[in-house]
Amino acid sequence: MKMKYKTLLFCLFLGLAGTLAAAEPSSDVAQVQFNLNVVWTILGGILVFAMQAGFAMVETGLTRAKNAANIMMKNLMDFALGSLAFFLVGSAFMFGKTAWGIIGTDGWFMTSLHGAADWDWTFFFFQTMFAATSATIVSGAVAERTKFSAYLIYSVIVSAFIYPISGKWAWGALYNEAAAGWLGNLGFCDFAGSNVVHSVGGWLALAGAITLGPRLGKYNPDGKPNMIPGHNLVIATLGVLILWIGWFGFNPASTTAGIGDIGRIALVTNFGAVAGMTSAMITAWFVMKKPDLSMTLNGALAGLVAITAPCNTVTPVAAILIGTIAGVLVVFSVFTIDRLGIDDPVGAVSVHAMNGLWGTLSCGLFNAEALLEVGPANTGLFYGGGFHQLGVQALGALCTFAWAFGLGMLMFYVIRKTIGFRCSAEEEFKGMDLVEHGNDAYAGFQIFPNE
Amino acid sequence: MKMKYKTLLFCLFLGLAGTLAAAEPSSDVAQVQFNLNVVWTILGGILVFAMQAGFAMVETGLTRAKNAANIMMKNLMDFALGSLAFFLVGSAFMFGKTAWGIIGTDGWFMTSLHGAADWDWTFFFFQTMFAATSATIVSGAVAERTKFSAYLIYSVIVSAFIYPISGKWAWGALYNEAAAGWLGNLGFCDFAGSNVVHSVGGWLALAGAITLGPRLGKYNPDGKPNMIPGHNLVIATLGVLILWIGWFGFNPASTTAGIGDIGRIALVTNFGAVAGMTSAMITAWFVMKKPDLSMTLNGALAGLVAITAPCNTVTPVAAILIGTIAGVLVVFSVFTIDRLGIDDPVGAVSVHAMNGLWGTLSCGLFNAEALLEVGPANTGLFYGGGFHQLGVQALGALCTFAWAFGLGMLMFYVIRKTIGFRCSAEEEFKGMDLVEHGNDAYAGFQIFPNE
Amino acid sequence: MKMKYKTLLFCLFLGLAGTLAAAEPSSDVAQVQFNLNVVWTILGGILVFAMQAGFAMVETGLTRAKNAANIMMKNLMDFALGSLAFFLVGSAFMFGKTAWGIIGTDGWFMTSLHGAADWDWTFFFFQTMFAATSATIVSGAVAERTKFSAYLIYSVIVSAFIYPISGKWAWGALYNEAAAGWLGNLGFCDFAGSNVVHSVGGWLALAGAITLGPRLGKYNPDGKPNMIPGHNLVIATLGVLILWIGWFGFNPASTTAGIGDIGRIALVTNFGAVAGMTSAMITAWFVMKKPDLSMTLNGALAGLVAITAPCNTVTPVAAILIGTIAGVLVVFSVFTIDRLGIDDPVGAVSVHAMNGLWGTLSCGLFNAEALLEVGPANTGLFYGGGFHQLGVQALGALCTFAWAFGLGMLMFYVIRKTIGFRCSAEEEFKGMDLVEHGNDAYAGFQIFPNE
Repeated sequence: MKMKYKTLLFCLFLGLAGTLAAAEPSSDVAQVQFNLNVVWTILGGILVFAMQAGFAMVETGLTRAKNAANIMMKNLMDFALGSLAFFLVGSAFMFGKTAWGIIGTDGWFMTSLHGAADWDWTFFFFQTMFAATSATIVSGAVAERTKFSAYLIYSVIVSAFIYPISGKWAWGALYNEAAAGWLGNLGFCDFAGSNVVHSVGGWLALAGAITLGPRLGKYNPDGKPNMIPGHNLVIATLGVLILWIGWFGFNPASTTAGIGDIGRIALVTNFGAVAGMTSAMITAWFVMKKPDLSMTLNGALAGLVAITAPCNTVTPVAAILIGTIAGVLVVFSVFTIDRLGIDDPVGAVSVHAMNGLWGTLSCGLFNAEALLEVGPANTGLFYGGGFHQLGVQALGALCTFAWAFGLGMLMFYVIRKTIGFRCSAEEEFKGMDLVEHGNDAYAGFQIFPNE
Repeated sequence: MKMKYKTLLFCLFLGLAGTLAAAEPSSDVAQVQFNLNVVWTILGGILVFAMQAGFAMVETGLTRAKNAANIMMKNLMDFALGSLAFFLVGSAFMFGKTAWGIIGTDGWFMTSLHGAADWDWTFFFFQTMFAATSATIVSGAVAERTKFSAYLIYSVIVSAFIYPISGKWAWGALYNEAAAGWLGNLGFCDFAGSNVVHSVGGWLALAGAITLGPRLGKYNPDGKPNMIPGHNLVIATLGVLILWIGWFGFNPASTTAGIGDIGRIALVTNFGAVAGMTSAMITAWFVMKKPDLSMTLNGALAGLVAITAPCNTVTPVAAILIGTIAGVLVVFSVFTIDRLGIDDPVGAVSVHAMNGLWGTLSCGLFNAEALLEVGPANTGLFYGGGFHQLGVQALGALCTFAWAFGLGMLMFYVIRKTIGFRCSAEEEFKGMDLVEHGNDAYAGFQIFPNE
Repeated sequence: MKMKYKTLLFCLFLGLAGTLAAAEPSSDVAQVQFNLNVVWTILGGILVFAMQAGFAMVETGLTRAKNAANIMMKNLMDFALGSLAFFLVGSAFMFGKTAWGIIGTDGWFMTSLHGAADWDWTFFFFQTMFAATSATIVSGAVAERTKFSAYLIYSVIVSAFIYPISGKWAWGALYNEAAAGWLGNLGFCDFAGSNVVHSVGGWLALAGAITLGPRLGKYNPDGKPNMIPGHNLVIATLGVLILWIGWFGFNPASTTAGIGDIGRIALVTNFGAVAGMTSAMITAWFVMKKPDLSMTLNGALAGLVAITAPCNTVTPVAAILIGTIAGVLVVFSVFTIDRLGIDDPVGAVSVHAMNGLWGTLSCGLFNAEALLEVGPANTGLFYGGGFHQLGVQALGALCTFAWAFGLGMLMFYVIRKTIGFRCSAEEEFKGMDLVEHGNDAYAGFQIFPNE
C-alpha cells in the first residue's frame, strides 16, 4: 500500500494531477521524474528476474546430481509458462476491475494494457517477474520426485489463477483504485510480498510436499529421517547470493518510483539478511554442534523473506530484530517439518511459508509511525499502535493460507488422480535427468548417484 | 535507427537545440535528463558486459571438462583484445566520418572522442560491449579444437575490422549524421543487433566451423554424427540465465536514453525469450521424444536473438509469435547443421546466424505503425505495410552474410595456411587445458575426459 | 576527494545551497537530480554487494574441494558480521566528527544517521558494501587453514576498527566537512579505494598469511614451493567476471551522484582490467611457457585494483598503461611471495596490496589536469605536475601500510596466543568442511582431496 501513496504524494509535489499510471506528465520536470521511475522499475524487474537463476542454483545445489538437469528444466519452464499465463489471464485476475475486491474481471489477454502508455508496460514487466517468483518457490519442496508434465500444469495454474487472486486482495490498488482488493482496503501491510509472494509459494510448497510424500530413502522404516546431502554447496551458495542481489530489486524497487526511500529500504533489507544468516548459524551451531552451511544459507533467505513485508515501514534496528528471529525460526522449522514426515528437500516451506508469515505479522509489531505516511496502515504494537495492525496482518495471513494451501491441496489431489503427480520409483532411483530428459548433467564426471 | 529519432524528439521536447551527442544541455531539466541517459546507458553496458560471463558458462557447460580452462581463456581474451582493438581502430571504422556510408575514415585511436564530452565516453563504453559480444559468439562454434594463438589473432580482426564495418552500414548514424551508413539510410531496421551483432558473429562462426572441420570422434566413418555431451548442464543453464539478464541491457538500453519506451522493450524481449524456450522444448519433445535441456536452453537464446532487431517496433503478441518460430527454427537448424557434417559444439550458428536472420526479417513482417515514429523505417507486411520493409531487411541481411561469411572464410583460410588454425590431434585427445595452458580445470575430481 | 567537489559543484549548478547531504533539495529539478543520485548510488551498492559472490567463487575455485564449504561460510559470515560491526561502531569511527582528522568520535550505533534523511541511508548502504569488501579480501590469503572462530573474530575487528580508521583519513569528508580526515585534507587521491579498500585488505592478508604459515605440503623440506592447484577454474573465472561486473559499481558509483562523469569512469575502469589481463597473460606465457588461466584471472583483478584510485582523474590511454604495469606486477609478485615462503593460496597480497599500492601511486604519475576540478589534488608527474602529488600518494600509502600491516600482525598474534588462529593438522588434512562444518560440498562426486 505504501508505495502507492508515496508515489502519489511525489507526483502531487511535482504538480501532477493524477497518479503515475495516469500516463501523461504535465511538465518537463515531471516527465524526467517519470522516466527515472521507469528506469528504476525496469532495473528492479531485471534484478527480480535474476532471482530465477538464484532459485535454480540453490535448488540444484541442495539436491542430488542425478536430478540436476530436471531441476534446471523445471525452473526454466515455470518461468516461461508463468510469464505467458500471467500475460494471458493472471494479470486480469490481479489488476482488472473488481466489484468486491476479490477477483479482477477485465483486461483479459492484457487488453487493457495493450497499446497502452509506457507506464503500463513497465508495471506489467515488474509484476510478471513477481508472479514467476511465486511459482518457482514451490519447485524446491517437490524436487527429485515430481513428474515433469504435472509440474508444467500446476505451474500454469499457480501463475494464472492462485497467485493473482490472493495478490489482488493485497495489491490490486497498485495498478489503480478500481482494481483495489479487500485486504488492501483494510490497511493490510505487505510492501514487497512476504505474504503475497513468499507465503503463497510456501503454502503451495507445503501442499505439494505433503501430497507427493517423501523421497525414497528419506525415512527409515521406524520413521527416523535421513539426511540426503546436496551435491554442490558452492553452487547453492552462489544461488543464495544471487537471490540476495535480486532482493535488492524485489524490495527497494517495489516503490516503483525512483525516490529517496529506496536507500533506507535497501539498507533495511540487508540488515534482515545478515541478521537472519547470523542467528541461523548460531542456532545451528547449538543444535547441530557445527556451524552448518545449508542452515546458514537458509538463514539468509529467511531474513530476506521476513523483511520483505515490513521493509518500508520499520527501522534498521527493528530489521535486525526481525531478521534475528527469522534465522532462529527457520532452523527449528526445518527440523520440525523433517520430523513430521514431510520431505522438503531445500527447506522451502520453512524459508518462504514460515518466514513469510513471520514477516507479515512483524509489520503489526514493528511498523514505525514516522515511516507511515498517508494511508490506512497503522503503527505496530511495539511502537504504541496497539493490536489493530497486528489483527489485520493476522487476518490477511490466515486468509492467504486458507486460499493457497486449500487450493493447493485440491489441485495436487486432482493432478495425482488424473495424470499422476509423482514419477515412478525406477525413475526416482535412476535419476530424473536420464529417464525424463535423456540428459546427463555432469557427463564425464564420476558420480555415485545414490550415496 | 529508431533510438536516434526518439532521443532527438525527446531532446527537442526538453528544449535542446541538437542531439544528445551535442554535449551541453541548455537547461537544468535537460541536464538531469542527460544524466539519466548516461546512468541508464552505462547500466545497460554493464548488463551487456555480464553476457561475457554468460557466454563463457554456456560454452564450457556444453563442451567437455578437458577443455574448460581453454574456453575460459578464449572468452576472457577475446573480450580483452576486442576492447583494445575496437578502441584503437574499430570505433573509427564504425563511427568515423564516411563519404559513401561504407567505412569510417577518421577518429583513429579514438582521437575524435579523446578528451571529448561525457556523452562520447558513455556511448563508446556501450558500443565496446557490443563489439566484444560479436567476437565471443564465434568461440562456441570453434570450441575444443582451435589453436589458442590463432584464436587470439582472428578475435582482433573481428573486433577491429569485420564487425565495425558492417556495423557502420546499419548503425553509423547513432553517433552522428556524418557517420551514417548506407543501410541505415535505406531504412534498415535492427534496433539492438539481430543482424549487426548476432548474424555477423553467427556467420563467422559458420565459416570457422567449416574451415576447422569436426572434432575427433564427432562423426562415424559412415558420416553419422555422434552426440558429444557437455560436462556441466547446471553451469550452462546459469550461463543462459546470465545471458538473459544481460539481454535486458542489450535490448532496452539500446535506446541509449532513459525514456518510457524501455518498459515495453523489456517486456517484448522477455516474451521473445519465453516463447522461444517453450516452442523449442515442445519441438525437441516431438523430435527427440524427450524434453531436452540443451535444446530448451538454445530455444531461449534463439528467442532472444530473434527479438533483438524488432524489440522496439513490434507488439507483445508479435513478440510471442517471433519467439515461437525462433524456438522451432533453432531445433531443426541444429539437427540440419549436424547432418551436413558441420560440427558446431554449442549450436552457435543455429542460435545466432539463423535466428539473427529470422529476427532481421521479422521487422519486415511485424513492424507496427504505432511504434514507428519519425524515421525511414516502414510498417511490416502483416501490418499493412506491403513488401517494402521486408525487401530492405532481406537486402541488409544478404549483404551482411556476404561480408561476414565471405571475409570469415578468407580470414580462416589464411590463418590455416600460415600459423595454423587447428590444434594437434594429440592435444585434442588429451585436452587443450593440459597441453595449451598447463591447467587442470577440475583438479581433484575423477573425470573421464573422452567419454 | 573528487566526488565531493564535483557533487557540490553540480548542486550549486542546480541552485542548491548546500551539499547533497544537506537533505532537502530546494527545487523540483534538484529533487529529481537528488532522486537520480539515490538510484545510482543504490545500484552501485548492489553491484559492490555482488562482489561478495565474486570473491567467494574466486577463492573456492582456486583452492581445494575439501575446503569449499568452509570458504563459503567465511565469505558469507564476514559480510554479515562486517555489516553489523560497521553499523554499530565502524561508521562512527569513519564518518563521525573528528578533532584531528584521525578518528571519528560520534555517531555510535549510527545514531547520527538514525531517523535521518534519505541521503544518509543511501550513503551508509554504499559505504557498508565497501567496508565488507575490505574484510573479504583477507580470506583468500588465509584460506584452507584458518580456524573458523578466529576468522569470525578478526573479521569483526577489521570492519569495526581497522578499515574505518584508515578510511576516515582519506574519505571522512565524503560524509561532511566535520568528518574530514588528515590525508584527504592533504589532497590525497583515492577515488574509489585502491588504498582505502584494497591495500588495507591486502596488507591484512599479508599479515595473516605470515602469521599462519604455509599449508601442509606447500613447501618441500628444501623450501621449494609446490603448486596446489585449485579445484574449479570455471567457477574461479565466473568469480572474476562477477567481480569485474561489481567493479562497474565500485568505481563509477563512487561519484555517489548520477552525473555524466560515470561514462568516462566506466570506460577507464574497463581499460584497466583488459590491459592488466592481457599483460599478465603475456608475462605468464614468457615466464611459465604457457598462457596460464590463474595468472590471467589475477591480471584482470590486478588491473581493476590499480585503476580504482585513479579512475576519475586519468585518461583512457593512461588507464591502459596503468593496467599493463599492474598485469606484469602481479605475476612477478605471485612468484616472489611464493619463493619468500609466504603461502597466499589465491594471490590476494599480489592483487590487492601490491596493485593497491601501484594504483595509489599512479595518481601521482598520471593525474590529468583537465580531469582535476576544484579540489586539493594535483596534476601527476607525467602530466607536468612535478613530484608533489606523488609525494602525497606515497605518504598516504606508507601510513596505511603501517596501520593495516602493523595492527594486523598484532591482532593475529593475539588471536594465535589466545583462542588459536590455525586449525589442527588433522583437520587440514581431512578438510575443513568435514571437521569444522560437518559438510561435504560435493556429495556424490568422486574426489581425491589431497592430490
